Amino acid sequence: MTTHDLGVWPALLTPLDEHGQPDFTQLEKLIACHVSQQLGGLYVLGSTGQGVLLPVEQRKSVAEFVINTVARRMPVMVHVGSVATDDAVELARHAASKGADSISSVATIYYPLGADYTFEHYRRIGGASDLPFYVYHLSAVNRFGGSPREYVDRLLSLPNIRGMKFTDGDLYQLGMLHRLAGDRLQLFSGADELMCHATLCGVQGAIGTFYNLWGPECQFVRRAFMQGDFVRGRAFMLVFQQAIHEVLSGGTWSFLQLAMRLRYGIEIGRPRPPLGTMERPWKAEDVQRLIADVQQAAAVPS
Amino acid sequence: MTTHDLGVWPALLTPLDEHGQPDFTQLEKLIACHVSQQLGGLYVLGSTGQGVLLPVEQRKSVAEFVINTVARRMPVMVHVGSVATDDAVELARHAASKGADSISSVATIYYPLGADYTFEHYRRIGGASDLPFYVYHLSAVNRFGGSPREYVDRLLSLPNIRGMKFTDGDLYQLGMLHRLAGDRLQLFSGADELMCHATLCGVQGAIGTFYNLWGPECQFVRRAFMQGDFVRGRAFMLVFQQAIHEVLSGGTWSFLQLAMRLRYGIEIGRPRPPLGTMERPWKAEDVQRLIADVQQAAAVPS
Amino acid sequence: MTTHDLGVWPALLTPLDEHGQPDFTQLEKLIACHVSQQLGGLYVLGSTGQGVLLPVEQRKSVAEFVINTVARRMPVMVHVGSVATDDAVELARHAASKGADSISSVATIYYPLGADYTFEHYRRIGGASDLPFYVYHLSAVNRFGGSPREYVDRLLSLPNIRGMKFTDGDLYQLGMLHRLAGDRLQLFSGADELMCHATLCGVQGAIGTFYNLWGPECQFVRRAFMQGDFVRGRAFMLVFQQAIHEVLSGGTWSFLQLAMRLRYGIEIGRPRPPLGTMERPWKAEDVQRLIADVQQAAAVPS
Amino acid sequence: MTTHDLGVWPALLTPLDEHGQPDFTQLEKLIACHVSQQLGGLYVLGSTGQGVLLPVEQRKSVAEFVINTVARRMPVMVHVGSVATDDAVELARHAASKGADSISSVATIYYPLGADYTFEHYRRIGGASDLPFYVYHLSAVNRFGGSPREYVDRLLSLPNIRGMKFTDGDLYQLGMLHRLAGDRLQLFSGADELMCHATLCGVQGAIGTFYNLWGPECQFVRRAFMQGDFVRGRAFMLVFQQAIHEVLSGGTWSFLQLAMRLRYGIEIGRPRPPLGTMERPWKAEDVQRLIADVQQAAAVPS
Repeated sequence: MTTHDLGVWPALLTPLDEHGQPDFTQLEKLIACHVSQQLGGLYVLGSTGQGVLLPVEQRKSVAEFVINTVARRMPVMVHVGSVATDDAVELARHAASKGADSISSVATIYYPLGADYTFEHYRRIGGASDLPFYVYHLSAVNRFGGSPREYVDRLLSLPNIRGMKFTDGDLYQLGMLHRLAGDRLQLFSGADELMCHATLCGVQGAIGTFYNLWGPECQFVRRAFMQGDFVRGRAFMLVFQQAIHEVLSGGTWSFLQLAMRLRYGIEIGRPRPPLGTMERPWKAEDVQRLIADVQQAAAVPS
Repeated sequence: MTTHDLGVWPALLTPLDEHGQPDFTQLEKLIACHVSQQLGGLYVLGSTGQGVLLPVEQRKSVAEFVINTVARRMPVMVHVGSVATDDAVELARHAASKGADSISSVATIYYPLGADYTFEHYRRIGGASDLPFYVYHLSAVNRFGGSPREYVDRLLSLPNIRGMKFTDGDLYQLGMLHRLAGDRLQLFSGADELMCHATLCGVQGAIGTFYNLWGPECQFVRRAFMQGDFVRGRAFMLVFQQAIHEVLSGGTWSFLQLAMRLRYGIEIGRPRPPLGTMERPWKAEDVQRLIADVQQAAAVPS
Repeated sequence: MTTHDLGVWPALLTPLDEHGQPDFTQLEKLIACHVSQQLGGLYVLGSTGQGVLLPVEQRKSVAEFVINTVARRMPVMVHVGSVATDDAVELARHAASKGADSISSVATIYYPLGADYTFEHYRRIGGASDLPFYVYHLSAVNRFGGSPREYVDRLLSLPNIRGMKFTDGDLYQLGMLHRLAGDRLQLFSGADELMCHATLCGVQGAIGTFYNLWGPECQFVRRAFMQGDFVRGRAFMLVFQQAIHEVLSGGTWSFLQLAMRLRYGIEIGRPRPPLGTMERPWKAEDVQRLIADVQQAAAVPS
Repeated sequence: MTTHDLGVWPALLTPLDEHGQPDFTQLEKLIACHVSQQLGGLYVLGSTGQGVLLPVEQRKSVAEFVINTVARRMPVMVHVGSVATDDAVELARHAASKGADSISSVATIYYPLGADYTFEHYRRIGGASDLPFYVYHLSAVNRFGGSPREYVDRLLSLPNIRGMKFTDGDLYQLGMLHRLAGDRLQLFSGADELMCHATLCGVQGAIGTFYNLWGPECQFVRRAFMQGDFVRGRAFMLVFQQAIHEVLSGGTWSFLQLAMRLRYGIEIGRPRPPLGTMERPWKAEDVQRLIADVQQAAAVPS
């Protein structure tokens, strides 16, 4: 309970240029932004960072660039999850060789293989380096059918296991995982829309897409809430949930593209298809309004 | 945000005698217990109260007895949900005629009819009396496929609609319902294991099975948490979630039977089959330990 | 493989009068119709027969009337499934005392209790009389999580178990159940839209709603198909699937009401709400067209 | 109805050598085997062919080799589905340039994007060449929420659309797709365990894993069944379903490895992880027994 909190980590966007290649100039600006905001750390090349959409060599380049640019000013966790286990193993070794602080991987993708295969997949990835390993529990990709205790036992048997990014709305399961694992698993909540709710489950940090944009507000409110400002936490989460709902309904990528430009002057470019292909452009005024709504909700005096 | 909170309401157990008939002596003791604990109100003949397992005439007897025994010392909401719409309508009229404060109904049961039929079912029940009507949103029975706004709009079009008992783990949906409906819908959280988490979604009260046993502890912690005692709320919820998990795994009805006897001297009897048929008996010491665990978790000084 | 086939059984409609009470005059006409069509048997008071929507005493009256009216001219299976196990047990004993040929029950309703409770529910119902017992496997209500072999083993352990009505689209599971159980379980397919497909899984008969209307056509095509008339079976099923799709989309009860009147002069009345409440009336010409489409599809020379 | 049937197509295995690289020697033997068996065609680099597990360049090599080796003796359909749309587009153009007969693609993978994105993904792939395009409908990856008519309309709007590989157990949906699309969509059933059942839905062929091993038996029985040998079809499918169930339970890849060696002398090697990692080795006698069971079931005189 008294453990140090790790704060809010952006699931780092990977800016792309007009040819769909990583744009290192913009990536450097984005990293500088998050460092200056004193966020908790960076989660690189996850779903938001388009990891599985990039070739292995490009993933290596991006990971190495982030590690070198951050230069130990904040922790860097590299997501290495891939369709092919061997690609993930190769990326894990690479991340370790370049100085990442930790690695993470989603479960098996595409083939419906079940829990035994997912844990073997994790075992090979976790054992590929000496870095702390964080499972990426993503409800859209995999669910573990067993009891919370079985899940915890299997997780703790993995080599170098250190924690989990829990991107799922099931806070009963999340609380049980913490209750059973205690300090043996460091849990990050991965559902931005439940950022404060999840702190009741004993998570030590939050990783998510929207912390690229609203990192300072989210980090501030999350801490205030955990220090007793329930009224602020509730008011913020209701506004934040609605903002997320509007963004998801209207098109996440075109929103982020415009919002990152308007707030930070950073060009993240268009994502790799199939991402973003069916989105209509946002109006600047709607984007500004949503940015401001969330900012104001964080500032409400309690 | 500043609305009066309605507190913790037991989903009232219906004690049965050895012949499976309502035991009004024990029911009177149970009501007296909840009144003396100054809980927020009573939710009568819901899933916990075995409403759908009892014949219509027995449901009327139980509802009338509770209303008369409580005698306005706390609000009484009567669940009238039934397989046949006309049975629910008849029960709603009866509850109104006997002085209930409000009625509630679950969606359609058994036949997979979809949202249009569920709302027509609600419409007939809500319109059967002048009492405030609370929809019982139960994830195991129905899900609404539309957007939160569509859901809110359809709910608000129901006659006498006043609120909802939301027995579902999806706190993103719950928060959106509150954000969109505001004061027009009074929301109760119905998942005991997320009692504090749900307060972040703007609910005004909590209805649940375990408040029959741990009403004072839950009401105390819920209020303290909402007044800023995050540490107590988190510590309590982690213990409470594990206790709920153990009870559900070991057999809810045989646990409740022994726990209500040990803590309050109340005999709730055995439930109507299929409920409880496959449960093994609990040991008194295990029940005592779980009762004490939750009590202690509530008492932890922050 | 050489076992006698039991043919096509209507899931018998329960005609209701304008007050929502069983209309025995129309019921007698309906039974006479099915007897004259030489269908395989009758499945009484299932989902189609509105069993769970009728009070226990009315269910007894309807069952007894059907048994007496049929007077052994075809087998009568009485569905006794209920929310409360004891109601189902009472109905099973009643059916046996009045001369039913067999009984059937759906799994537990409403409470999400799992397979152990469902099998205990079945055990009590199957053991309530000496009649052959048929489990009603309904995908909308219950699924068995274990392997096909475990399912078969548990089914075969039930008292008086004789077979199953399998109302589910999973024909892989159905085939496996037959492969593993062989002659020990008599399987009926319950998904009308897969009537011929299911014969490949070793079922011995078909029970369904639409055999009330198209019993002769379905029985003829099903037999012809099993005797080698693949072309007729395929042509018929494609038309029959589309007709079912149109009926379900347009309103099953108002279609059946008009279709039974137009084809047979039988008034089935309006079903008990929530059934049928949101249906718009059909035009007679559309009903006539669908009746004729299916009749013609059965008559296509192969 | 009278359209020419396209027969049974193996979802071609991609033999790998001990380094996990495509083994063209074994691949040539496998192709020769299928050509000599006079099967209907080859479906290359689908789920069975490990397409999504291989780098783009290896996929090109395998596709080109198959096309050249087959040399027009049977049609070759190349699956190009990928996580990144642009990879699939590149593979489609390559397949066209090398002389493939048609291409196919699964829906979007990993990101839960919904139907609009899937159809845009399909649109780009279908439009990438002039080859006939076949959507790969895979229940584990995507489901279309709309009505059958909407699905058909959207499919028919795709550039170069010619048909669909339907790998799903929902034969009601499959029949409706055929009924609505008629000759405008050429349907292949993709669930081996429902090979004969699906012919009732108007499919023109079957594509599947197990036709690599049991191609002659399946092609023979499927044709005999469609020509009226119901008894053989039913007997075969019951045995075939059980064999499939045993293979899936015991480990598909290690079974196929041993079975292809024992029956054809072809070494398919071990699949890329995560495939096959948790399988135990099969005993040769068990593999022989299953091979023989299916062979004998096909030979049963009707």
